[in-house]
Amino acid sequence: MRRRLLGHAASRGSAMGRARVRLPHILDVEEQRITAAEVDAELDRLHDAIHATRKEMQDLRQRLHGALSQEVGEFLDLHALLLDDPELLQGLDELIRVKRYAAGFALRKQRDRLAKVFQAMDDPYLRARMDDLDHVIGRIHAHLNDKVADPEGLAGEILVSDNVAPSELAQLQTQGVVAIVTAAGSPLSHSAILARSLHMPLVVGAAHVLQKINDGDALIVDGDSGQVVIDPDAKDLLEFRQRLKDAAREQRELGRLRSKPSRTVDGVDITLYANAESREDIARAHALGAAGVGLYRTEFLFLRSDGLPDEETQFRVYRDAVLGMSGRAVTFRTLDLGADKADRAGLAVANEDNPALGVRGVRLTLAHAGVFDTQLRAILRASGYGPVRILVPMVSSREELISVRRRIRNATVALRKAGHVVAENIPLGAMIEVPAAAIAVASFADTVDFLSVGTNDLVQYLLAADRNNEALSTLYSPLHPGVLRLLRHVVRSAAEADTPVAVCGEIAGDPLMTPLLLALGITELSLHPATLLEVRRCIRESDLSVLGARLDTLLKARDRAGIERWLTGRGKA
Amino acid sequence: MRRRLLGHAASRGSAMGRARVRLPHILDVEEQRITAAEVDAELDRLHDAIHATRKEMQDLRQRLHGALSQEVGEFLDLHALLLDDPELLQGLDELIRVKRYAAGFALRKQRDRLAKVFQAMDDPYLRARMDDLDHVIGRIHAHLNDKVADPEGLAGEILVSDNVAPSELAQLQTQGVVAIVTAAGSPLSHSAILARSLHMPLVVGAAHVLQKINDGDALIVDGDSGQVVIDPDAKDLLEFRQRLKDAAREQRELGRLRSKPSRTVDGVDITLYANAESREDIARAHALGAAGVGLYRTEFLFLRSDGLPDEETQFRVYRDAVLGMSGRAVTFRTLDLGADKADRAGLAVANEDNPALGVRGVRLTLAHAGVFDTQLRAILRASGYGPVRILVPMVSSREELISVRRRIRNATVALRKAGHVVAENIPLGAMIEVPAAAIAVASFADTVDFLSVGTNDLVQYLLAADRNNEALSTLYSPLHPGVLRLLRHVVRSAAEADTPVAVCGEIAGDPLMTPLLLALGITELSLHPATLLEVRRCIRESDLSVLGARLDTLLKARDRAGIERWLTGRGKA
Repeated sequence: MRRRLLGHAASRGSAMGRARVRLPHILDVEEQRITAAEVDAELDRLHDAIHATRKEMQDLRQRLHGALSQEVGEFLDLHALLLDDPELLQGLDELIRVKRYAAGFALRKQRDRLAKVFQAMDDPYLRARMDDLDHVIGRIHAHLNDKVADPEGLAGEILVSDNVAPSELAQLQTQGVVAIVTAAGSPLSHSAILARSLHMPLVVGAAHVLQKINDGDALIVDGDSGQVVIDPDAKDLLEFRQRLKDAAREQRELGRLRSKPSRTVDGVDITLYANAESREDIARAHALGAAGVGLYRTEFLFLRSDGLPDEETQFRVYRDAVLGMSGRAVTFRTLDLGADKADRAGLAVANEDNPALGVRGVRLTLAHAGVFDTQLRAILRASGYGPVRILVPMVSSREELISVRRRIRNATVALRKAGHVVAENIPLGAMIEVPAAAIAVASFADTVDFLSVGTNDLVQYLLAADRNNEALSTLYSPLHPGVLRLLRHVVRSAAEADTPVAVCGEIAGDPLMTPLLLALGITELSLHPATLLEVRRCIRESDLSVLGARLDTLLKARDRAGIERWLTGRGKA
Repeated sequence: MRRRLLGHAASRGSAMGRARVRLPHILDVEEQRITAAEVDAELDRLHDAIHATRKEMQDLRQRLHGALSQEVGEFLDLHALLLDDPELLQGLDELIRVKRYAAGFALRKQRDRLAKVFQAMDDPYLRARMDDLDHVIGRIHAHLNDKVADPEGLAGEILVSDNVAPSELAQLQTQGVVAIVTAAGSPLSHSAILARSLHMPLVVGAAHVLQKINDGDALIVDGDSGQVVIDPDAKDLLEFRQRLKDAAREQRELGRLRSKPSRTVDGVDITLYANAESREDIARAHALGAAGVGLYRTEFLFLRSDGLPDEETQFRVYRDAVLGMSGRAVTFRTLDLGADKADRAGLAVANEDNPALGVRGVRLTLAHAGVFDTQLRAILRASGYGPVRILVPMVSSREELISVRRRIRNATVALRKAGHVVAENIPLGAMIEVPAAAIAVASFADTVDFLSVGTNDLVQYLLAADRNNEALSTLYSPLHPGVLRLLRHVVRSAAEADTPVAVCGEIAGDPLMTPLLLALGITELSLHPATLLEVRRCIRESDLSVLGARLDTLLKARDRAGIERWLTGRGKA
């Protein structure tokens, strides 16, 4: 019988398919013993399963490289590390050899033992680590019993589960999953952000979904409205087909915008840069007519397991990006890691209670001058092949920029002496994401050639709300009067200093936010290629003089509700 | 032979005494076995030592209650928790019973075993935990060998060590230590802040001090200049005596200011409130002529081991504070805990990667309405005994304040129905420490009766720099152009809305910062009683018209160096 469920729309798009219900992972293996004669074979089985798990992760890592935002890779790297953990592995062997446990039961025992160690320590970080460990142990267990999902087995299916981890999303898509519905989760989670960039329809927070949907039920998932229909009727099917047709038409229309300028109704050109971190991104940015790359993330080069990348490795990657944009500028953001990740990149750092408020971005690179200089040299050498800009993350003060300029100058002199071509006057820019830098932007706007507002971090600091903390997902929002007033202040201060300023956070790529950014006077955006055409369309439908006349109302909004009213055009802010 | 060392001045005052050098704690006990017959006696020895350690910590905790800022208590609570850790204790018993290790060697083995577990996990939090565990194990070991420092043994001595933990400072002072010199540490660390409130001279970052000073060397420590003299000569002794005389005279002069108004040269009265969290603070605030309590911290009531305080317990503490100020207002800040500490107060919260950017302050209390209402009821009942104000921490938005007002209104109605006296129109205030709230203060200034700028947290968020992260101690500073401009913005916005605004962070109690705050237009400060008279003296020597004329120069300062030049009056900012 036809039923409906409503969750939160987390990633757009519609899909129809059979439900594949995945119950929460519980490792409840029964006690099972082996004989002395079976020990060696059982150890082999276990090691094969671990090997298969390791390979599965490596394969996934390989496929992901560059194609997805860095987060997925991070989760995978973490899991790979756990898979090499001697504490985990030696204990397992012992349980089989000494206690004569079957491999599956040894896995469970070892898991329980480690869980107890963790819980006894009552450490917040550890509990999160335990989830990772559970994931890894679950994978080994699946391989042990050959219960690995058939790569084709999920084709055309809709995954229904308690939650979905960022690290599985790409794999699920490869396996053919066409949409996902989860009982938990938030539209602001990492998983939701990734689902959007993968164009995987996702509905989250659909209460009791595991009880209401059975394996094999026919489902229609609408990632635009958050609606899930179980056992659809004829009317649902017609509506679904219509939505697919609409979506296809929209895609065709958007396609026509590839070669069109990003010009407002009243004839103002808005500069649309692309965010990029891979060859694919560069190719798409080029194809979509981006004005250049406004934010090239270099972290992925540093988060591999084989140590810090040398100058030559970096140079080739940067040069290829420059060549790929054929004459349009590529803005390289220098290494932007926090101490929590720098550790994994092999940079010695202290432990931090609050890594988001720690030694990250330019603070980290200035503290590791050798690593920083190597990267600067690689970027400077790439400037011989086309226009390059250098963007410094987490700038707090003028002093930091002066230090960076000095390093660039010294590296340039040395490179030229060694016979390398380095462009003249490479523009240097500062990321505006530290609130004090945003407020005092006038004090250093003349020290840089351009500015780029990183709204993701800026909003996080302005609201003192970790953007990855789901408990704060309502609070973490750019739609706060303080955020808008500060953005306006930055735009005006930059204009007075004649310094161009772009916005490069998530909101730059959200077409719903485009009118707001244009009203604030922002004329440069840097965004993921995925939504570039949608934002361009929105720009082409906007009239700056109309938006400008509404700016005062926007800045007078007293709360989020007022700003939302402004955005939807309903009544006064 | 006379020698000199220079470190960083971390806590003022001079002292002379013999050096007591404490080498870094290394647990290098030799292997030692016992016979089967000795097992029971050895277990008794161990348990006695653990019991003695637990008692030592309880005694210290008792002595500290209220007398010191909450931080010391936290460290102690953490250590007490470790002392009850079954992982630690059971393992120890087993090592003695099964392996027949002597208790001291068992302690070392168990320590090494746990250290290995921690290190294998590669978790940043864990390493910090390991330090705590080492501290606890070190204490047990001391008790095992009766090597507990004789309470009188340190009288008149100067502790020379690698570092000093916040949790030991009060104990060291009780034992008679007159000054401390450390090789590591920063003037901005918790230990330094505590040393200042204990008036314990402290010099930190004195390189190679452990090599250069020997046990028993005669030392003169100058906490004002950071200078340490080893084997002082006649000239040093004369200088030292002169410094003591000067300090005594200064104390006498300050004493005369107890009954004097905090009035500038040009006749403007500045309101000086006291920060308080104990009876002693209240008594001092009253005696020093504070205008009231501007910030009464209530957290200490919630961080005890015996569960959440009930309404009656809280009521009595709040009522006593109100009575203690005899008619001057007491501003109660509602519970201000982060998720990392709320856990220990028995409030269920999720684990957080960045607790400073997490569910804390009013976010936490609004999520635990029962706990919040109990506290509000206790405060409202105290208002029957004298003037009371309610201050809400970590406010981000108007919406939160409206929720709080509603809760207060409902609680008032219910209390009056039950026959309690509740004052009319109890002023409600918002802490300004979230940057977005500071920027958009005009959007809610009319929703509150007063504002209090918490500069400690505000600066931390503005600079995206954890104030407890020593690696960022240079960056974390209120002397950033962005901080000053925002403070000025808050003062002006509050004046336009006719809402009084006070500053209550560390800088309010730093006489060096007083001219800067006065220049910015701040007329209310709330500070620890320890420096109230010094700040009053500074106010009485200030001329607002002169400072006001220099405001423009201050706001134009482009960097920290410029602001420091302004403060010292040297040249132009």
